[in-house]
Formats: sequence, C-alpha cells, structure tokens
Amino acid sequence: MSELTLQAKELDAADALAPVRSRFLLDDVVYLDGNSLGALPAHVPDRIADVVRREWGELRIRSWEESGWWTAPERIGDRIAPLVGAAPGQVVVGDSTSVNVFKAVVAAARMAGEERTEILVDATTFPTDGYIAESAARLTGRTLRAVTPAEVPHALGPRTAAVLLNHVDYRTGRLHDLPSLTAAIHAAGALAVWDLCHSAGALPVGLDAHGVDLAVGCTYKYLNGGPGSPAFLYVRRELQPRFDSPLPGWNSHAEPFGMQPSYDPAPGAVRGRVGTPDILSMLSLEAALEVWEGVGIDAVRAKSLALTDFFLSCVAHYAGDRVESVTPTAHGERGSQVSLRCENAGDVMKRLIEAGVVGDFRPPDVLRFGFTPLYTSFAEAERAARVLGAVLG
Amino acid sequence: MSELTLQAKELDAADALAPVRSRFLLDDVVYLDGNSLGALPAHVPDRIADVVRREWGELRIRSWEESGWWTAPERIGDRIAPLVGAAPGQVVVGDSTSVNVFKAVVAAARMAGEERTEILVDATTFPTDGYIAESAARLTGRTLRAVTPAEVPHALGPRTAAVLLNHVDYRTGRLHDLPSLTAAIHAAGALAVWDLCHSAGALPVGLDAHGVDLAVGCTYKYLNGGPGSPAFLYVRRELQPRFDSPLPGWNSHAEPFGMQPSYDPAPGAVRGRVGTPDILSMLSLEAALEVWEGVGIDAVRAKSLALTDFFLSCVAHYAGDRVESVTPTAHGERGSQVSLRCENAGDVMKRLIEAGVVGDFRPPDVLRFGFTPLYTSFAEAERAARVLGAVLG
Repeated sequence: MSELTLQAKELDAADALAPVRSRFLLDDVVYLDGNSLGALPAHVPDRIADVVRREWGELRIRSWEESGWWTAPERIGDRIAPLVGAAPGQVVVGDSTSVNVFKAVVAAARMAGEERTEILVDATTFPTDGYIAESAARLTGRTLRAVTPAEVPHALGPRTAAVLLNHVDYRTGRLHDLPSLTAAIHAAGALAVWDLCHSAGALPVGLDAHGVDLAVGCTYKYLNGGPGSPAFLYVRRELQPRFDSPLPGWNSHAEPFGMQPSYDPAPGAVRGRVGTPDILSMLSLEAALEVWEGVGIDAVRAKSLALTDFFLSCVAHYAGDRVESVTPTAHGERGSQVSLRCENAGDVMKRLIEAGVVGDFRPPDVLRFGFTPLYTSFAEAERAARVLGAVLG
Repeated sequence: MSELTLQAKELDAADALAPVRSRFLLDDVVYLDGNSLGALPAHVPDRIADVVRREWGELRIRSWEESGWWTAPERIGDRIAPLVGAAPGQVVVGDSTSVNVFKAVVAAARMAGEERTEILVDATTFPTDGYIAESAARLTGRTLRAVTPAEVPHALGPRTAAVLLNHVDYRTGRLHDLPSLTAAIHAAGALAVWDLCHSAGALPVGLDAHGVDLAVGCTYKYLNGGPGSPAFLYVRRELQPRFDSPLPGWNSHAEPFGMQPSYDPAPGAVRGRVGTPDILSMLSLEAALEVWEGVGIDAVRAKSLALTDFFLSCVAHYAGDRVESVTPTAHGERGSQVSLRCENAGDVMKRLIEAGVVGDFRPPDVLRFGFTPLYTSFAEAERAARVLGAVLG
C-alpha cells in the first residue's frame, strides 16, 4: 500500500461525513462530476414512484392541495434556505437558472432606479448569465458591461444599477469574495445579484449575513435534485415588496385562483414564482434534500477543502508537471472543484471516463473534477489522481 | 336500465377509441378534469423508474448524451407537432406556459417592428396570459389593450404589433375561430400568437395550414404529461431566423458547449430553448405521448363532440333548468369541455367530488367538466350528469 493510499484510508476513517455516502446509490466508478449532475440519493426512486403512481395516478387533481404540490416551490425553498444562509421566506424554487437570472437582473435594475444605467456582469461567467444579462439590459434600457470580478470595485459608480457575479467560477473553481464584493457594490448604491450554481450545497454562502440582494442557484449539482431540477431564487426580505418581476405569471398572484384580470403580486418569496411548477422534478429535489438531515454546511466545507487539498497532493505526486492546476491553492479562493489544464484535455477526459473516473471537460483545455463531500471519499480522490497519472503516461 | 344508460352503452360499444382507455391507469371515479391534469398513462411509472434508477442513477452525467436528454426538448416537440398540425422542426418543449407566452409575445412584437406600438390580448383569457402580455408590452415599449376575441377584427390596425388569443376559453369552453382570426390579424400586418392550452390534444389546430405565427400550449391537460410537465412553443419555420428571444439562455446557443461569451442563436426550433430542461417532467411527457400511437386527432375530435353532445343531453334530462350551460351548442364553437353555471357552484363541485365525479370549479359560478376522448366513456358522461342531478336535489 502506497503512502497516499494509506493516507486516504486514514482520512476516510476519520471522516465524520463518511456514513452519508450510504444515502446515495453509487457504484465503483469514481464520480467527480457532482458539480454538473449530483448522484442519485437512495430514497429518491421510491419517492418518485409514489408521486407518479399515487399522487398523480390516484389522487390526480386533488394532489395540488392534498399532496402539497401547490406550495412546493416555497416549501422546498425554505428547505434550501439554511444551506445558503437564508432565513425562511426568502427562497423559492422553480424554472431554470437562466430564467431566474432574468427575473433577478431585471428586478434589480428596476429597484436601482432609472438614473442607474449600467449593469455589470462577470466577464468570466458561465455563458448563460452573460446572454441573459444582455437581454435584461436591453429590455430595461441599460447597457451591459463585462468585467472580471477583480475589476468590479473599480468599475462601480453612480451609474451602476446592478452587478451579476458568480460565487464560484465554473471553469477554474475559483471562489470569489462574496462579502467584500457585496459590500463594495452596496457602497456604490447598486444591487448585488449572485449566481450560486457552484457554491450552493458545497460551502457556506451567508446570503443574509452579507446582505446579498438577490441570488439564484442550481439544484442539480451539489444539491442532487436530479437532471434539470428547478433552480432557486433568493430575494432579500426587505426588497420583496419592491420585487417587480418581468415574469408575473399567475402563480405569483396574491390570489392565484381568483382569476383576476389585473395583476396583484403576492407578498414574500412567492412573488418569484411564474407558472405551474414541474412537480416531478421539483419533488425529486425535495426528496433529495433529505440527505442533508443532520449534515451541516460547515462540515461539508471542511471536508471539501480537505478533499481538494488531498487531491492536489495526489495529482502532484502522480501527474507532476504534466498538468497545471488553475484552481487557487488558497482555501479562501477555492470552491469545491479542482480544474487542471493539460494538453489534449478532451481526449484525456475520455480516457479517464473509460478508466472509471468521471469528471468533465470544458473547452479549450480544462479537466474539471468536482468534489461532493456528501459522497466522495479520500480513497476516490487518490484513485482519480492515480488513474490520471496513468492516462497521461 | 334507463334510456340514457342504454344509449351510453350503445355509444361505448360503437366507439373506436374505447380500447385506448386501457392505456391509462384509472379507477371507478368519473374523472372529468383532464382539462386541468390529464390521467396517468399506464406505462409512464415504469419509464420514469428507469429514467431515475438507470439513466440518472447509473449513467449519471453520461445520460445527457447517451440517454438523449440533451435533445429531448426538440424531439418531444416533434412528437407533439402532428397533434397541432405542425411539420417537424417548429415545436420545442420546455419551461412553463407563462414563460413561453413571454417569449412568444416579446418575439412577436420585435418581429412586427417599432412602428407597431400596440399588443392586443384576449380580455377573457386565462389570467396569466394577460399578466405576461402586460409585462412583454412594458418591456418592449408597447401598450397592451384587452379586447374580446369577437372585437379583435375591429380593434386591429396599422399600429397593431401582435395579438395573443386563446384557442379555447378556459372558463366557458368556447372554441374561437383560429383560421379567420389569424387571417384578419395577418390582413392588418400583425402577428398572431395562439395559446393552445385547452385545444392541444383535444381537437385539430392546423397551425401550419392556417399560417399561425407563434403558439404556446400546455402538455399536462389533454396531452397527459403529468403535473407541471413543460409547455411547448411553436415558431413558424419562416419566422425562425427572426425569432429574437428575450430569454436567450445557453441551451438556445448555436454551440452551447462552446462556452462562447457572445450569443449566437441556434437555427430552428431550438432557438426557443432557454436553460437546462427538467428531465423527469420532460421524459414523463415523452412517455405519455405514446398513448397517441395509432390515434388520429380527427377521431379524437369526433368523439369529443359526441361526448359533450351526449353529456349536454343527459344534463338536460337529469338537471333540467337548475343549471345553465355556458358552452356553445354549435360544434364549431365548442372545445372539449362543458361549463355549467349554477347556484353555489363551489359547494356543488365539492359534493360531486365526494360522490365520485371529478370536475372543477372556476369562480364565480362555473362547474367545468373536461372530456378526454382517449379515456372518457359515454357511460361516464351519463353517470356524471345523473350524479349532478342528484346533488342538485
């Protein structure tokens, strides 16, 4: 047994989260792509079968009330809230991340007022945020400017309406400084909109504590909600009365079954709803969130950093200088993934997958390995690095 | 056996669609709410179990390609297309109806040009269409005017950008004249956007034949996709190159995995996509569409009219003048539901449901009974009317 194998064994033995792995259905593949699609929680199949056969098949229309379908978006939002540091009543689930980015950026621009004519967006963002922010700017008569997160403090000014930033960079895994960037944005009188796709469920976010204005996040990555499970929208409580949605669907009406011709928005997080929620995807997410029972986000963060530290050590040992990490080594700047740059990265990832190590490839040259502390072991981190070394030859 | 019971028996015996009922999981409840939530097709539970356990649980991220998840929105769109009279490549599935109304109305206004400053909306519409159209008008600098479908021809003019109409009125069940209204809208140089929520899967629509510009529709009513299954968007082929989406998410990019910072829209129906599709709800819909194997929409329409004719006769017999039908008697003006007005309608519906006849109540005084020819029998129509008569006392 090599020294690293032994070390992995010891780390796993000391890992308080190790038993949580049994809450998932896994096999002997090393699955390091939970930052793209989380693994299947073990109890979800039975829950979904019940939703389909009994709630839909037997109760049918009655389930909107009797099975709690109608209130699922805000109920599940409240289940996610503590994982992102939000008190109840501020998070609602529904629609895709892109649609929620649209709601958030348009609403933020409107709250900022007409005289603030510019929206800033993270130039290194996952593309959809940039495309949607451009549309939001166009429709609200603002201009959009792309700047790197580091440039944000200098780009802010009296014309800035809102800033859309990613908490963790999807490509490099860099964690941005949410507290200080939010403070800088507020100092300029603008609104901070955070995209938490790569941080929700992976590390503490502290939305309330840091006074974030609006946030959106993905639920099928570190929250394991299933393929395309609906995203979430956070609107800080004090801003909710001024949240003026560009998608004022009937689900956000104060009296949705009153069938009123005029729109009267509901109070609270419900105002972020739009149309009929996709119940199967939504209740899969709700069931998936049960794996968090008794698990604190701080413990998850501690294990995440230990896992990525250990993986980086193993990579240094097995792959040496044939790869270059683009993920920051400083803990305060690292999300829950490690991104490695290498030659022929697309081909390398194919061979890794064939060898039972699943990460993903992001053009032009990045291998991404996501670490989900709920189910990833140190032994897997070591094995992944070892296989990578072998694949690189 | 009463005369009506006997007649129902004969009608059922002669019904070529009667065997299709066995493709659904039903019980002895008379379910006349398929216009709100379609019943569960019998093979859907096994299909969803496979999607969850194998496609998500075992293949995980690989399923986006290997299980055809990525292309599901346009593949399922093409499966719906023939049911609404559309050639392939013009329908895409995803997001809620409300979100698709937003895409369609904004895109229509943009195609109409800046000099056309007014959007017309059906004043009798299901409320969400009006709320969303108001938002679309506000964001594109247009004014919104609510007119009844009958008033549309006179309200049209050189300033009209687009008209959003319902094919079937959700409350009364009235079928509007899509061909002639579309022709009138086109004669005024405006674009016709049709909401097919209460017609798709219930009657022939003829989108291509009548030159409809854009359309949206619901899949959890007569298409039985399951609670909150994603809606569909139709963009006529000739208009697709000019379809300028207000929700240009990464799924609508020409090269979605190129991760380009600039937006370059995909050609075709895919341009109507936004974010990651909700796979569980979407594949439930895909499976549900298999019940249409060998079933033509014309046969469905013929049975629908026979069912509602027969139900109206039975209601006249059992309930007499204690109810008043607000659904047109002329076939050309009737959708696939019967709406009856009566005193204390909310209470009457509660008692009907207790007695095993499920319809729904729409304020202030309407009982709705939806007829889904794929699984509703004439015997059920007779029984529903008989129970209604008894409940009314």
